[in-house]
Amino acid sequence: MSECYPPGGPRVVVVGAGFGGLAAVQALAKAPVAITLIDQRNHHLFQPLLYQVATAALSPADIAGPIRSILARQGNVRVVLDTVIGIDRDRREVLLASGKRAGYDWLIIATGARHSYFGRDEWACHAPGIKSIEDATAVRRKVLLALERAESETDKVRREALLTFVVIGGGPTGVEMAGAIAELAHRSVSRDFRSITPHCSKVILINLAPRVLESFPEDLSAAALADLERLGVEVRLSTPVEHIAADHVVAGGQTIHTHTAIWAAGVEGSPAASWIGAEADRAGRVKVDHAFHPVGEKRIFIIGDTASCAGADGRPLPGIAPVAKQQGRYAAQAIAAELKGQALPAFRYRHYGNLATIGRSHAVADFGRLGLRGLPAWLLWSTVHVYFLVGFRNRFAVGLNLAWNYLTFARHARLITGEPEQPDPTAANPIPHGETYVQAA
Amino acid sequence: MSECYPPGGPRVVVVGAGFGGLAAVQALAKAPVAITLIDQRNHHLFQPLLYQVATAALSPADIAGPIRSILARQGNVRVVLDTVIGIDRDRREVLLASGKRAGYDWLIIATGARHSYFGRDEWACHAPGIKSIEDATAVRRKVLLALERAESETDKVRREALLTFVVIGGGPTGVEMAGAIAELAHRSVSRDFRSITPHCSKVILINLAPRVLESFPEDLSAAALADLERLGVEVRLSTPVEHIAADHVVAGGQTIHTHTAIWAAGVEGSPAASWIGAEADRAGRVKVDHAFHPVGEKRIFIIGDTASCAGADGRPLPGIAPVAKQQGRYAAQAIAAELKGQALPAFRYRHYGNLATIGRSHAVADFGRLGLRGLPAWLLWSTVHVYFLVGFRNRFAVGLNLAWNYLTFARHARLITGEPEQPDPTAANPIPHGETYVQAA
Repeated sequence: MSECYPPGGPRVVVVGAGFGGLAAVQALAKAPVAITLIDQRNHHLFQPLLYQVATAALSPADIAGPIRSILARQGNVRVVLDTVIGIDRDRREVLLASGKRAGYDWLIIATGARHSYFGRDEWACHAPGIKSIEDATAVRRKVLLALERAESETDKVRREALLTFVVIGGGPTGVEMAGAIAELAHRSVSRDFRSITPHCSKVILINLAPRVLESFPEDLSAAALADLERLGVEVRLSTPVEHIAADHVVAGGQTIHTHTAIWAAGVEGSPAASWIGAEADRAGRVKVDHAFHPVGEKRIFIIGDTASCAGADGRPLPGIAPVAKQQGRYAAQAIAAELKGQALPAFRYRHYGNLATIGRSHAVADFGRLGLRGLPAWLLWSTVHVYFLVGFRNRFAVGLNLAWNYLTFARHARLITGEPEQPDPTAANPIPHGETYVQAA
Repeated sequence: MSECYPPGGPRVVVVGAGFGGLAAVQALAKAPVAITLIDQRNHHLFQPLLYQVATAALSPADIAGPIRSILARQGNVRVVLDTVIGIDRDRREVLLASGKRAGYDWLIIATGARHSYFGRDEWACHAPGIKSIEDATAVRRKVLLALERAESETDKVRREALLTFVVIGGGPTGVEMAGAIAELAHRSVSRDFRSITPHCSKVILINLAPRVLESFPEDLSAAALADLERLGVEVRLSTPVEHIAADHVVAGGQTIHTHTAIWAAGVEGSPAASWIGAEADRAGRVKVDHAFHPVGEKRIFIIGDTASCAGADGRPLPGIAPVAKQQGRYAAQAIAAELKGQALPAFRYRHYGNLATIGRSHAVADFGRLGLRGLPAWLLWSTVHVYFLVGFRNRFAVGLNLAWNYLTFARHARLITGEPEQPDPTAANPIPHGETYVQAA
């Protein structure tokens, strides 16, 4: 039945196959429409676990699946691998990098966000963020290479810098990243290296706000802080970052020597605002009304991290997966309702709670009146994340990996990929190992 | 005890952590030596399953593990991530790209092989080979992108070229690769794409020799050929490749339009010969005696694919893992024996048999007098490969993936990674999908 939409019938174009776009497409499965889903990558990514790829606990394929496979059984959608370069609102066409155009009757823009350096884009190369699989494997490479270099570095100051990891941003991503790096550097790795011992390495979390996890209640922030400190993370609160370079970070007036800085401090919307000539907020998100339309454009929905949308309390909805998914489903329902000539009740965001994990076996969970911490929160976190992974295979594999890593402290995906790098020839001194190494002339 | 080697005592440097190098290091676990293992990558790679990464059935981390982890419990070895740039035989030092030097009393060179284009290096960019994880993910990207582009290509001739996959070389690698691509293109993919149907795609295996798997008996070659043809692979025997370009391959005087050619036709040794100024054969391998020493150099062992070594029958030993492992162990035993002032019996290669798999559930196995084919050979192949994987975790994960893929035809690792590519703007015509696509002006 779903294959039988009328040729020439209503066309829905969805841009972006993240949580929002995918939810919209799936909610339209039984609608008499022809959907085109456009993404510049061939896979849907479960971003909340991306930091686990960056810290070598999971493989990319554990948390990503081909969009085509996820939608294989949905007959009314066509998946297109292409990049949007603009939108022609008059002709109702999406312009693609291939030179093709996709005509729409309704357009759902769900292109997500990229990290934002607040105008200091030159920091990007020194402090990468983690939004894509490529980001995550690049960070993994950076962290693992720093450990390798520290292992063969005999100069104390240089080794200390190599073993200092700085995470900028104390939201869920920064907290999770700092916790995971601390475990990687302090525990998982100690068995395999000869020169590095667990107490050699230092993980510093820099947060501009006076507490970590600002979106959580204060007691849970405090619990998260305690968990981080238990893992050996040095947390610097109310500390602005003033400068980032290849070998140091200046924060709160202090210089930290490090070769591995990771950015988790801010995101900005994709260029959707410029595509449709709409107004954007400071973070590049398009302002939309309560039905996710930009001003004066009922044919376009903008959802997820691309949109700036006020919740019932007047505050903007947070940039998390449940928001994107609920908005995606609502946009789909709005289209289906309009096709039937029905009215749809106003959107109401249902908040299920906030979760953040801090290393192995600790987490915080905020359900409004109920707050959880420690192991119960972590078990909940694991269950929720594994449950929401798309596709049985991934769910099973991630569950297995998480359990395995939990039991063994192993980091099975500790691969440095990319062409072998030539070690820095300016690095001082050789590696002492009994008499094995002889000093360079 | 193994930590107690005398400082200043015998130093063994092993270059390369493939099958040969790792076997040598592990066989020296109880010897009173200080080992330095140098590799330009941080992981040991189970190369025989690399084609499964290239065809999206396995993830890189399934078949590779950090060298440090594999050797974590061996106290007399130090793992160094560095690149060898030369060897000073007079001072007995290995020169490293970092500017450091590693002094040795014995040196084991096990640097493996790269693919060789027989002097036509300009073919490398059009027809990549598969020797490293980067190679495999690059091939995976190439194959999957070709399918994506074919899906949105309306020009019949161009689509046909996009769906033509050419594998050059009919040895085990080429046969396994062709079988796996045929399954990916014909079967696994058919469910997910809308325009591509299983019979659209074409896999061509080009072999210079008059039969595939020349190292196997003729009846098993014939069985492999039949298996390939059953999978829809077109096999062209006794066919030389005359030219390779971005969009075509000329073989046996005929032009094949293709965007995806894969090289499995030949390998050459690493530059070890030039490091020590030794004689090399045409394939770049260093000629060694029956104890794996190059001429006049008893301190150096060269093993595995880097060496050209005659077997008991006078024919060169094949470039397979069992040869490298046995040679590595023998070199280690030779060092240990010399330290004890003992003599070692001459090396004798024990050939256990040849195995090659052709797609899902078919293989050929040659044990001299006994030959297996079909499902029994495939079950044996699976068992052997999973068994020999380094590390329990990988063994378990690969076993699970192979079983899962067998049951479902799924290709869970079908990720196109790397920065999104801009689709070819010269590509003709848009994608028809009801009325969804509008032709570019």
